Amino acid sequence: MRERAHVREVGPRDGLQMVKTILPSARKLAWCRGALEAGIRDIEVTSFVPPKVVPQFTDAEEVARGAVAMQGLRPSVLVPNLKGAERGFALDVPQVNYVLSASEAHNLANVRRSTEESLEDFARIAAVRDQRPGVRIALGGGIATAFGCTIAGAVSEARVVEIAARLVEMGADEIIVADTVGYGDPGQVRRLMKAVVAAIGHVPVACHFHDTRGLGLANVTAALEAGVRAFDASLAGLGGCPFAPGATGNIDTEDTVFMLEQLGFDTGVDVEKLIDLRREVENWLPGERFSGAIARAGLPKTYRPRAKVSA
Amino acid sequence: MRERAHVREVGPRDGLQMVKTILPSARKLAWCRGALEAGIRDIEVTSFVPPKVVPQFTDAEEVARGAVAMQGLRPSVLVPNLKGAERGFALDVPQVNYVLSASEAHNLANVRRSTEESLEDFARIAAVRDQRPGVRIALGGGIATAFGCTIAGAVSEARVVEIAARLVEMGADEIIVADTVGYGDPGQVRRLMKAVVAAIGHVPVACHFHDTRGLGLANVTAALEAGVRAFDASLAGLGGCPFAPGATGNIDTEDTVFMLEQLGFDTGVDVEKLIDLRREVENWLPGERFSGAIARAGLPKTYRPRAKVSA
Repeated sequence: MRERAHVREVGPRDGLQMVKTILPSARKLAWCRGALEAGIRDIEVTSFVPPKVVPQFTDAEEVARGAVAMQGLRPSVLVPNLKGAERGFALDVPQVNYVLSASEAHNLANVRRSTEESLEDFARIAAVRDQRPGVRIALGGGIATAFGCTIAGAVSEARVVEIAARLVEMGADEIIVADTVGYGDPGQVRRLMKAVVAAIGHVPVACHFHDTRGLGLANVTAALEAGVRAFDASLAGLGGCPFAPGATGNIDTEDTVFMLEQLGFDTGVDVEKLIDLRREVENWLPGERFSGAIARAGLPKTYRPRAKVSA
Repeated sequence: MRERAHVREVGPRDGLQMVKTILPSARKLAWCRGALEAGIRDIEVTSFVPPKVVPQFTDAEEVARGAVAMQGLRPSVLVPNLKGAERGFALDVPQVNYVLSASEAHNLANVRRSTEESLEDFARIAAVRDQRPGVRIALGGGIATAFGCTIAGAVSEARVVEIAARLVEMGADEIIVADTVGYGDPGQVRRLMKAVVAAIGHVPVACHFHDTRGLGLANVTAALEAGVRAFDASLAGLGGCPFAPGATGNIDTEDTVFMLEQLGFDTGVDVEKLIDLRREVENWLPGERFSGAIARAGLPKTYRPRAKVSA
C-alpha cells in the first residue's frame, strides 16, 4: 500500500485570476470535469470576490453550483471576507478557504487591514459557519507570504506558526501555507513546515507553492520531509500573484503529480489524462504562458506507478 | 563558516554541443572569463571529440589552451577516448573527464562499445596519465544514464555503484554521476547517491543533472542530503542530450547557485554577475532556448548570502 498524497487543482481559481481571457462558465466546469476524470477530487473552483474586482469571477455562483453538483468532486472556493464566505455557505460548497497574509505589509496592500483584523474576520466566518444548520462546511485557513514578502522581505517563522495555531483554534479544518511570491527555499520550507506540523499536526496541512524562482518542486520534496501530504497546484502552472513582479505561476499540476508518483506516493491521478486536459485548456486560453516539463518531455520509460482511475 | 558547495560550469561544452551557432573561440573564452569573474573556478571548457563529429569543437585545442592560461581557472575537458585524453594531456589541462554509460544500450548507441570496453578504455587513459612526467592531471570518471535510459529504461543502481568503484580503483580522482536523460527523481537520487558516496566517499562525487522533467533542482537537494557537494550546471540551462527526445538542458547555473546559497552553502559565486554574463551569451546565441527562473524573476529581497567575489 502506497502512502496517499493529495493534489488540489487551483487552476480554475488561482490560474484564471491572472489570465486575459474570460472563460465561459461551461468551460470552467469542463475543466473541473476533466480534472475529476483524471482523478483529482479536490478543486478550488472559483473565488467569491466582488465581481467588479475580478471580472473573471462574475460567474462564481454558477461555477460553484455546477461543481457542487458534480458527483465525486469535493470543490472548494476562495473567499476574501465574511460576505464571500456567506455566498459559499449558501451554496453548500464543501470547503471555503479564507486567506490572510503573515506579512502585515502584504495584508494591508491586499485587503487594507492588519493581519489581526483578518484573523478576527476569520473568527466571524467560523462563528457563522458553526451556527449554520445542516452539513458542516469545512474551513481552510490560508497563510499567504508565509515564506517571505516582496514588500516586507523576511517574514517571522514564529508568526506563521502562531497564525496557524490561531486559525485552528478558531475552527479551521485545514491550514494552507502559501509561498505567494516564490521566496521559499527547501531549507526554510523543511524548517517552517516541521514547526507548523508540530504545532497543529492533528489538522491537515497543505502547502501552496509558486514556482517563481524555480524551486517549487524542490520545496514540495522539503515539505514532504516535514510531513506535509497535500499540495495546491495549477494545470500548466497557470497563475501567479499580482504582488510578485516577474512571477510565474503555481507549481504545475502535471509535474507535481509526476514527482509524487515517482517518489512512491499514491495521488490517484492519471498524468496522461491531465496532459490531455491541458491541451484542451491551452486552446481556450490563447496567449497565456503554459509551463511544465512533463507535457513537453513526456513521461520517462521508468514511470512506474500509473494511477488506475475509474471515472 | 558556511559549508562549501561547488558548481562546475559545463555550458561551453554541454551547452554549446547542442546549439546551432558555431561560437568563435574568443567568445568561448570570454564566456569562461565572465564565469571566472562571477566566481566560478571549475569550467568544462570544451570536448576533445573528433572535429568532424561535432564541428562546434573544431577549436578545442585553442579554447583549452586559452582556458589553461587563465589565472585562477581550473578548466576541465570532456574526452570520448584515449586519443581525446592525450590531446588534453598534451595541453596540461588540469582535469580530463571521461564518460561512459551505465546503460549498455546507451553506451552502444553513443560510442559503439560495451560498458566493460569503455571501462577498459578508462584504465588505458589512467595508465597513460600515470606514466606522464610533470604535474599530475586529474581524471574525472563520468557515469551517464545513471538514473535511467531512454533506450533501456531502468538502470541497475548496484551497477552504477560498481562502475563508480571500478573507476576509482582504476585511478579516477572524481566521480560524476549523470542523469543524462532526466529520469531521476529525488527519492532515487537520495538512495543512489548515498550508496555511491558510501562506496567511494574518499573521492569527490559530483552530480550532473538535466532538467528534462522539471526535477533538476529537487534532485540537487536530494543529492545534498546524500552528501554530494559538487554539481555540474549550464548557464541559462543550455544543453541537453541527443538521446533524450524533447529534452531541455542541464540545470541552470544561476538557479543552482541561487538555491545553494539560500540553503546556506558557500558557492563563492555572485549570481548577479552570472545574470550579466547570461545576457551577453544570449546575444551570441540567437534562437536558442534560455531557461532559468532567477534571470526572469530576479533575486528575492530575502536573498542573504551574496558572495563577495574578488576577480
